[in-house]
Formats: sequence, structure tokens, C-alpha cells
Amino acid sequence: MGSLQDAIKKLQIKPGDRIKLKERDAHDKCGFDDQVRTEAETAIMAQEIDQLQDRLYAEGTRSLLIVLQGMDTAGKDGTIRGVFNTAGPVGVSVTAFKQPTENELAHDFLWRAHAACPRRGTVGIFNRSHYEDVLIAKVKSLAPKEAIEKRYDQVNDFERMLMENGTTILKFMLHISKKEQAERLQERLDNPKKHWKFNPGDLDDRKLWNEFEDAYETMLHRCSTKWAPWHVIPGDHKWVRNAAIASIVRATLEDMNPRYPAVSWKPSDFKIV
Amino acid sequence: MGSLQDAIKKLQIKPGDRIKLKERDAHDKCGFDDQVRTEAETAIMAQEIDQLQDRLYAEGTRSLLIVLQGMDTAGKDGTIRGVFNTAGPVGVSVTAFKQPTENELAHDFLWRAHAACPRRGTVGIFNRSHYEDVLIAKVKSLAPKEAIEKRYDQVNDFERMLMENGTTILKFMLHISKKEQAERLQERLDNPKKHWKFNPGDLDDRKLWNEFEDAYETMLHRCSTKWAPWHVIPGDHKWVRNAAIASIVRATLEDMNPRYPAVSWKPSDFKIV
Repeated sequence: MGSLQDAIKKLQIKPGDRIKLKERDAHDKCGFDDQVRTEAETAIMAQEIDQLQDRLYAEGTRSLLIVLQGMDTAGKDGTIRGVFNTAGPVGVSVTAFKQPTENELAHDFLWRAHAACPRRGTVGIFNRSHYEDVLIAKVKSLAPKEAIEKRYDQVNDFERMLMENGTTILKFMLHISKKEQAERLQERLDNPKKHWKFNPGDLDDRKLWNEFEDAYETMLHRCSTKWAPWHVIPGDHKWVRNAAIASIVRATLEDMNPRYPAVSWKPSDFKIV
Repeated sequence: MGSLQDAIKKLQIKPGDRIKLKERDAHDKCGFDDQVRTEAETAIMAQEIDQLQDRLYAEGTRSLLIVLQGMDTAGKDGTIRGVFNTAGPVGVSVTAFKQPTENELAHDFLWRAHAACPRRGTVGIFNRSHYEDVLIAKVKSLAPKEAIEKRYDQVNDFERMLMENGTTILKFMLHISKKEQAERLQERLDNPKKHWKFNPGDLDDRKLWNEFEDAYETMLHRCSTKWAPWHVIPGDHKWVRNAAIASIVRATLEDMNPRYPAVSWKPSDFKIV
């Protein structure tokens, strides 16, 4: 297990580090070698996450925010299913950030993210997030360059404020190879049940692969902080991706060590009639 | 299976019916006789609900709203876990209605319920709901009598509007016996891990058991409509409760018959490079 923990630790981007996505292997197995066994272990970790989440809910004073980013087809929904379905919707809420509405655009870019932050006692998952405002916004020049440049620090300050107020933050970039994306997009064309997932606009984004990679690299460099670290998760193998993320989430919740709250009464104070 | 379906159909309150909760057996098994087998069938139904939910999500035009009400310890969280954890938090959101905040009280009683209604394509679950405003509000005189009297029709109109705009509504009253509640409250006193769930105020509500029953009976009489039926679910056996609700939810989603949407393109229109 030692080498596995090391492999997982390496997925975290240290503050200030500059990485090149092309130099990281999206096909890497992070030390998980047997698929069947790893999937069984992930199922157990999902149960442990459920139990830890129950304690977090009981404690009711802190929350966990999970940010998922990645190119189209990177597997954001699949990650949520694989890692969080066992904990279920009572204590886990998911917010999918789509193209901003007129009302959202009428506010600063962090406004809608802030509104979606998890209640104390719960886990909140952002499927895409405020980081779109330094990713697609940058690649497609949806905001002035100087405004985007300021956003990295604004995001860091925002996330530090959340952390200081009881929210632990984990950020995962689901890293797939361009070849794997081609296969997943082709599958959406080939399988009629997946047609609805295919958006012709995704092909335009695919043409901008290098530009998106640049934007991701800047984001990872500027916004992986001590209080809200980014992890780059090899995503070509879905089972590796789920196992790695489940490991990190479980370890984080174990570190948080939520406790059932003490009560101000003794059981013998009450008689139920 | 015929008699099972009949038993389940009987759980629905017909519009205008007046029932007496004391005459209904909270311990009833609704024709589910073997616990192990029933739990296995419930797990399969939960998977079918997941698949139907996926089609609802793909279709993206309609939603399902599930309202859960019941006395303290009736099993609202447990129902959500048993029936909806397999579908998971991507397409299922839960809203727990607690004591209204100052801001909520500054609006009409339906305001916060409306804001929490599910997005198209998703299932929304209300853990308690706008019905608290004709239950606890009535029992504890939290609003003038005449105002509460008007709420039944206001709720019906609101729910019809939701239905006419694409939301299917299912309402479940989790019906436990007073004896079963005593056992569950005692378990919260006896098990230190459940102490946090014990609220001394629950004993005050327990003293008002008959008054709450009256309020429930009026609610069931006035607000079980063709477009948003109430079901009274025997709740003393958790496995019966979950099986009955899973059956009704699955049958409802099957009737809705969500479809993967047609697309305006042919797969051969695209070449992924």
C-alpha cells in the first residue's frame, strides 16, 4: 500500500508547480493493477465515504466541496456515480454549472458558485464550476484578458474564505487523452441511447484542445493552493479514476474526522410514554 | 402479483376520501411476505428507477416531485436511501424543509417550496414540505385558522400548476404506530451514535399525537387529488415501506415513459479527428 499512497499523493499539484499535461500519462494506473479487485475496493471505499458522510452530517458544522473539471467526456457524471452513489442524495448535492443564464451573467462570476456551496454537514459537488470562467472564458475570450487575469487570485481568496469558514475543498481535473476523447465521442455517435449526449459543439472545443490544455495548465499553476489543492487524475481508465478519487476523498474525510456531537442531556432524563 | 398490485393500489387515497389513521394498520405488510426476498426485489426496483431516471434526464422536459411526510422517526431519510441511492445524486436532489428562516417567513408559505422544485429531467424529493404549513402550523396554531383553512386549496392549485407544466407529483405519508415511534425514540436514547438525532422537543410533539393525526387526516382528505395523490404507507416495517414506495415510484416512471430525445443530425454527419 505504501507505493499506492505515494502514487496517489503525486496526483496532487503542489502550490506554484507548473505541470505539462502532455507529459502526464492519462492512461496511468496509479499502482492499481487489477481492475476487478480495484472496483471491489472502490465499492468498499464508497461505503466508508458514506459512513464518514453520516458523521459529517451528524456533526453539522463543516462541509466538503468537491470540484470536478475536465474536457468533454472526461467522466464527471461517472465519477459522481462511482464514488458518491452509496452515500446518496440525502447528504450529497450536485450542481451542474451550464452556460450562465442572463441573471447569472448580471452578477460577478463567483456569485452562482457561492450560492451553490454545500450546507454545513453535507458534501457538495460542482460538475464544472467557477473555473469555467478561467477555462472556456479564456479560450473563447468571453471576458477581457485583464478581467480573467484577476480571477485566479479572486478564486483563491474566495476558496480560502470558504475553508476558513468550515468548508474543506478538493479539486479534481479529470485528465483524458485526446485519443480517449475521440473514442468516447465516437461511442456517442454509434450508440443511439447516447445520441442525446452528443453535442456537435463539442467538436469545436476539440479543435481547441491545445488552447484548453494551456488554460488548464495556468489554472493548475495559479490555483492549486494549500487550502484547496488541485489533483490531476488519470482518466482514460474509468476504474482507475474512480479508485483514485475515492481514495483521496476517503482520506480527506478521515483527516477531517467528523464526530457525533455531544448532547447536553442524559438518556435517563427522558421517559418515553 | 395481482393481489400485490391491488394491495399497493389501496395505499392511494382517492380524492375526497376521509380515512381514519387509527383504522389503518401501520404494521401491515401489503402482501410482501418474505423480508429477504422483498429486500432483494427492492434493490432491483431501485436499479430500474435508476434506468428510468436516466431516460428522464436524457429527455430533459419533465420532472418528478416526491413529497415525504410523517411523524418524527417515520423514516424519511431511510426511504430516500433505500429507494433512491442507486439512482444517486446526479439526477436526484433532496430538500429538507426545516423550521422556516426569517427570510422564508417573510414570503408566502409556498415560496420556499416552489424555489426547491426539481429541474426538468430530475427527481426532487421534499423531506417534509409545504404540508408542514397545514400540519404543525395547525396543531400549534402558528398561523390564523382562516389562513390555514385557505391553504388546502392553495396547495392543490399550486400542485396542479406544477403538473400542467410537466412535473409529476407523488406524495407519501409514512405511517408509523405510536408504539413503533416509542421504540425508535428509545433507540435514539440508547444508542450513543444516535443521540444527535434525538430532539427533546420530539416528546412534546408526541404528546400531541392525536392532534397531529387529525391534521394529517384533514390534509389527506383535502389534498389527495387526481394530479397529486397522497399514499399512506405502512411504515412500521422499514422493508415493507421501501418496497411499497419503490413499487409506486417505478410504476409512475414507467407510465411517464421518458424517451431518449431524437436528434436533428445523422451520425454520419460527423467525423471525429
